[in-house]
Amino acid sequence: MLMGRVAIIGAGMTKFGQLWNQGLVELAVEANMKAIEDSGLDRKQIEALYIGNMSSGLFTRQEHISSLIADSSGLAPIPSTRVEAACASGAVSLRQAYLAVKSGMYDAVIAAGVEKMTDVTSTMSTRILSTASSQDYEASIGATFPGLYAMIARMHMHRFSTSEEQLAMVAVKNHRNALNNPYAHLRKSIKVDDVMNSAKVADPIKLLDCAPISDGAAAVVIASEELARKACDTPVWIEASAQASDSISLHNREDLVSLKASAVAGREAFRQARSSIRDIDCLELHDCFTIAEVLALEDLGFVEKGKGGKLVEEGLTEIGAKIPVNPSGGLKAKGHPIGASGIAQAIEATMQLRGDAFNNTNSQRILTHNVGGSGATAVVHIFGR
Amino acid sequence: MLMGRVAIIGAGMTKFGQLWNQGLVELAVEANMKAIEDSGLDRKQIEALYIGNMSSGLFTRQEHISSLIADSSGLAPIPSTRVEAACASGAVSLRQAYLAVKSGMYDAVIAAGVEKMTDVTSTMSTRILSTASSQDYEASIGATFPGLYAMIARMHMHRFSTSEEQLAMVAVKNHRNALNNPYAHLRKSIKVDDVMNSAKVADPIKLLDCAPISDGAAAVVIASEELARKACDTPVWIEASAQASDSISLHNREDLVSLKASAVAGREAFRQARSSIRDIDCLELHDCFTIAEVLALEDLGFVEKGKGGKLVEEGLTEIGAKIPVNPSGGLKAKGHPIGASGIAQAIEATMQLRGDAFNNTNSQRILTHNVGGSGATAVVHIFGR
Repeated sequence: MLMGRVAIIGAGMTKFGQLWNQGLVELAVEANMKAIEDSGLDRKQIEALYIGNMSSGLFTRQEHISSLIADSSGLAPIPSTRVEAACASGAVSLRQAYLAVKSGMYDAVIAAGVEKMTDVTSTMSTRILSTASSQDYEASIGATFPGLYAMIARMHMHRFSTSEEQLAMVAVKNHRNALNNPYAHLRKSIKVDDVMNSAKVADPIKLLDCAPISDGAAAVVIASEELARKACDTPVWIEASAQASDSISLHNREDLVSLKASAVAGREAFRQARSSIRDIDCLELHDCFTIAEVLALEDLGFVEKGKGGKLVEEGLTEIGAKIPVNPSGGLKAKGHPIGASGIAQAIEATMQLRGDAFNNTNSQRILTHNVGGSGATAVVHIFGR
Repeated sequence: MLMGRVAIIGAGMTKFGQLWNQGLVELAVEANMKAIEDSGLDRKQIEALYIGNMSSGLFTRQEHISSLIADSSGLAPIPSTRVEAACASGAVSLRQAYLAVKSGMYDAVIAAGVEKMTDVTSTMSTRILSTASSQDYEASIGATFPGLYAMIARMHMHRFSTSEEQLAMVAVKNHRNALNNPYAHLRKSIKVDDVMNSAKVADPIKLLDCAPISDGAAAVVIASEELARKACDTPVWIEASAQASDSISLHNREDLVSLKASAVAGREAFRQARSSIRDIDCLELHDCFTIAEVLALEDLGFVEKGKGGKLVEEGLTEIGAKIPVNPSGGLKAKGHPIGASGIAQAIEATMQLRGDAFNNTNSQRILTHNVGGSGATAVVHIFGR
């Protein structure tokens, strides 16, 4: 038996990018303050805080950021908890906040996410990110995330004749979508040739197939049905919150070209929302690399396995087409401050459903999809208005 | 409105100590398997996993341990989430599992905790632990946790005439209690003179005032009321689960000798359980340093502020006396593998209430208290049978 519904009633985020004038705590505080202001609630009404963050310990030598952020946001002594599932930390934060409200313990909770990544060199950043893969079987022998996703992409190309150009089109679309998004890290129009000619990172993945390394924070205020109806004219209902796990390393997977955790979480989300792909108008997918958006389209059932590249090539994932994907610009162009990404997806869904998104898709129901590592964690949320 | 009750129906832990033949994942898997076996459930009945861990990133260069541990425990594809609040990570894990069951989403969830600390030098370990304090105002200028608690102890001694001998008696008691606990890291009888003559770490804190640096893991299976009654003859009910935050650094606190977060969480726990200190028969308190046990007794209201040292000196916290404290041996002697400690406290409470503890206290109701850092997080649970 599940209790009353849960809604997002406020949202706020920092710009994503290389933000050298703000530290991790300042970023999180800015997002929290904006989310509270947007909700119309008084700060004293916030009863708990969740913060998604992958690795403040390795990036900034500061653990225990939950208390630091709560206190600096003027929210102490409320319970404040960090949650981590690598690049899915943001969506996992949203999920814990959702469950906490669902439990009846709280009426108003902040789900936030933050990552401060650019205070270390990019080599160091790549090493830190590799701690989300298996140290024993992957990172320790030199595998990086571009390398892991390159193996997946190569296999996808081999089995389904997916082309590098099709992957490049994911980047072109997401960069185009980000042009209107003032919060985006990369607001620069690119062409397929630009992607094809960009530096090879791990063949077939090139520089412009990769999401950037970003700083940023994002926060949403979520509320019980009773409070949401009282405090907010346009609550965005969380219709499903599903999460799944899988083997952390590629060699243990049943199939290299399918993220099983995405498929499991997707099915569970549709079960919870009592809906199907036909009810979804728009997607925010985890496009840390262009191949990842293709995988997600397939694993969530929006297109048959192997046909994701073709779907993109046919323009069906553009705004205004069959199923708009990543109208925000996605991780690829909006930026990917790890812990914040899952929350930023929820914010895009919120803006779309309120009708005040930068690229409006006139959606009634939106699905967001956040992945940890190379697929060992996947989280799917469905939002409706 | 809160839904049905939630119970612990299974518990398992590894030995605590320098466990050089087991890695982080192996430790967590051992605890999970023991907890599931103890619960009598089939592994397939476990629907979600929470894992408390402070800093696998800095200790072992492995983040994203949630998926690794779920998969290695044969539990994938269930949702698996790491939670962190420094040394309170274990109790925070229990709390999320509690809320997840309370939400109605799940009937059976594992709350686990693990830390692998002895694969680095003790100097490195001290530095890693300092990431639970403020980098900006404490760690960066050389403050370590013994140093921070030494300042608190010095002030407590100055204001209340608490003596070093009284603090030493906390260690003597907890070492004595650990003698019967086969899972304890330090099973060695000590005398007040041993503590007084042990090496000074940060005056007035001496080596034997400190909890050891330990490896270890602990796990409990928690269940909805319906499942608990069906699956278990001796469910241990979670009557309260409360958490609070405070300033991370000492200089921002209103009072150096009181952990406000402990007081706030304690009051909230008694409110939830509709009980008071008079209903509590036994305590597992966060004694990372001997002064911490004294602070906790005071902050939770079991003795007036400033009189904790005297309470210990009078023997009132011994097993069989007025209010037994840390019958397990506490962090001080049982060991303190950071992320596991809060769960191990819940396991001691479970064993006490089932009547199969190593030092039986014939308790009806037990309070556990887990602290993060120097008090920026505090978590209080109350268990009953």
